[in-house]
Amino acid sequence: VSSTPATPRVERIPAGEGAIWVGEGLLRDASRYLVSPSGRFLLVSPASARSASDPIRKALGSAVLLDFEIEDGEAAKSLANVEKISEAALAAGLRRDDAFVAVGGGVATDVTGFAAAILLRGVAWNAVPTTTAGMADAAIGGKTAVNHPRGKNLLGAFHPPRAVLSDPVCLATLPDRDYRAGLVEAYKAAWVADPELSSRASESLSAVLERDGAALVALLAGAARVKIGIVETDPRDAGRRHLLNFGHTLGHALEGAVPWGTLRHGEAVAWGIAAALEISKRRAGLSEQDAAAIRRTLSRLGPFPQPERDPKKLAPLLALDKKATAAGTAGVLLEEIGRARVEPSVPIPEWLDAAAIMSLS
Amino acid sequence: VSSTPATPRVERIPAGEGAIWVGEGLLRDASRYLVSPSGRFLLVSPASARSASDPIRKALGSAVLLDFEIEDGEAAKSLANVEKISEAALAAGLRRDDAFVAVGGGVATDVTGFAAAILLRGVAWNAVPTTTAGMADAAIGGKTAVNHPRGKNLLGAFHPPRAVLSDPVCLATLPDRDYRAGLVEAYKAAWVADPELSSRASESLSAVLERDGAALVALLAGAARVKIGIVETDPRDAGRRHLLNFGHTLGHALEGAVPWGTLRHGEAVAWGIAAALEISKRRAGLSEQDAAAIRRTLSRLGPFPQPERDPKKLAPLLALDKKATAAGTAGVLLEEIGRARVEPSVPIPEWLDAAAIMSLS
Repeated sequence: VSSTPATPRVERIPAGEGAIWVGEGLLRDASRYLVSPSGRFLLVSPASARSASDPIRKALGSAVLLDFEIEDGEAAKSLANVEKISEAALAAGLRRDDAFVAVGGGVATDVTGFAAAILLRGVAWNAVPTTTAGMADAAIGGKTAVNHPRGKNLLGAFHPPRAVLSDPVCLATLPDRDYRAGLVEAYKAAWVADPELSSRASESLSAVLERDGAALVALLAGAARVKIGIVETDPRDAGRRHLLNFGHTLGHALEGAVPWGTLRHGEAVAWGIAAALEISKRRAGLSEQDAAAIRRTLSRLGPFPQPERDPKKLAPLLALDKKATAAGTAGVLLEEIGRARVEPSVPIPEWLDAAAIMSLS
Repeated sequence: VSSTPATPRVERIPAGEGAIWVGEGLLRDASRYLVSPSGRFLLVSPASARSASDPIRKALGSAVLLDFEIEDGEAAKSLANVEKISEAALAAGLRRDDAFVAVGGGVATDVTGFAAAILLRGVAWNAVPTTTAGMADAAIGGKTAVNHPRGKNLLGAFHPPRAVLSDPVCLATLPDRDYRAGLVEAYKAAWVADPELSSRASESLSAVLERDGAALVALLAGAARVKIGIVETDPRDAGRRHLLNFGHTLGHALEGAVPWGTLRHGEAVAWGIAAALEISKRRAGLSEQDAAAIRRTLSRLGPFPQPERDPKKLAPLLALDKKATAAGTAGVLLEEIGRARVEPSVPIPEWLDAAAIMSLS
């Protein structure tokens, strides 16, 4: 199903009561894919996503009840913006059977999804991610959230979109650094759960880096299928879903050790994976051959900026992890490419050792 | 199970993953009933609920991670207060396995329940209602919400408490008007779904009005059992749950037709029931005998202030109802005491006629 075809095609991945659609040229036919019980839509997107939102606007025509422009950037992922969206939606006459459409990066989909979760105790929404990070990860799985001055994603809800439309055409103008960082999450999905996808995605890496549509559709559909498969066994993030956090335990610490935005999330995860590979070799029997194959892919997705490795800076951040206990901090370890498991507590010194020696070459 | 015993007792009503406890003297043993996966609690209550929160504070002792005082009154049911609770909870070190305890009226339980719903994408909470309205209705069924300048309960979530503790001892100091208005919802629950409870509750009305503990436990446990029974067949309020809105279609219009607070919610519902009885006689075959029995009980729960009956004022409010369509506004009709059904659209003129002739004597 996921081999790379010569002509564009559309992949449909069932996701709970909805579906994820991946394909070139989806946006022109958005009215076929977007879901609203009433047939009315509330569009929310930043100005920067205009090349993606314009075809949707055109496809939906008079079904657009509200066309709301939100700010861009992590600071916009706030409860204040949820209030602005709520006010605009209620002023426009929002009813329970209407649906939102969020077009943009992770900020647009997270904020809009959360507004949809709490307005009238929950209305339907659709996600149209316009970044590799959004298509591979953020828009899939039903987690919505905003930031709080005390930390990221501290206020949120589980509220899956009814439809996700991932059209690689949106990626044409994405800056190279964002494009590559976001892909780390797609490859990560393959590595934790799908050996065949890992192999195919490794072979198509050059085409993916050249933004080849068919190669992207195959990779992003495969990653979405892995993520949905895992999420549906654990929607509330109580167990198996943690597998998706491969690379995230140290990754979050690396991201937090430098001023916000210095390191892209995907870049921090790439380094976090490099560290997790070291621990996986010692604790989970991962072969050096598999570890080297992953490092090779990560280094071709990069080069990524060097992270903070100072144990004095990383140790307190690791101890702050949501899953930290006195015995250590949970991590996801790889047994082989395509098979991961959760290690309930890896002592912090082991993370720091891995951070000292991790490498992407 | 629900006959009135001579000695105090505790009733347990299973409710999803949690339970509703109704009994005299529960609060002293709160630590036996309140649920927290971590064993730590965040207490949220207004100063006015101190006679209920003090025994809980004492029972929980050092397990109280945060003791947060919120304002009282409908204006406190705001997103701003959810933010204040969130900030205090995060500052206190809230973790995913901690639990809130809301002690107070509908405002305290609605705001706290909603904060619990969105903090860290959902943490456990417990409700300790201190009013008849809270014990009979607001704290049961998982609806949480705050108001928005554009309307009541417009932002919220379905997030059932793990435990509800209804201790009639809390009601000793409740002002008589609030006490009586809140009881309307308890009787309403009996009338829509439980003929035997209706009959027992009618017989015990004098004892209930005298705030007799055993009579209250029997009535409130019965009402909770009816509500949970209905909610569990329709948790997201898509069908059968509408039965609980008996008296609410016109009730909401009556409440909105006068300055906020002029008419208690339960008082408006009492009048709304009186109107629904008239429509039920015409459309649902309700006997005048059953209608008269309900009017008798309502008149003994009152006297309630006369509502607005001017069709020019009520018509636009009825048309604004969330369930309004071009054909009319949905209503709940009674076929006989203990059996109700949803009528998808009752023309607005019929509501106005009923409002003109409705009576509570």
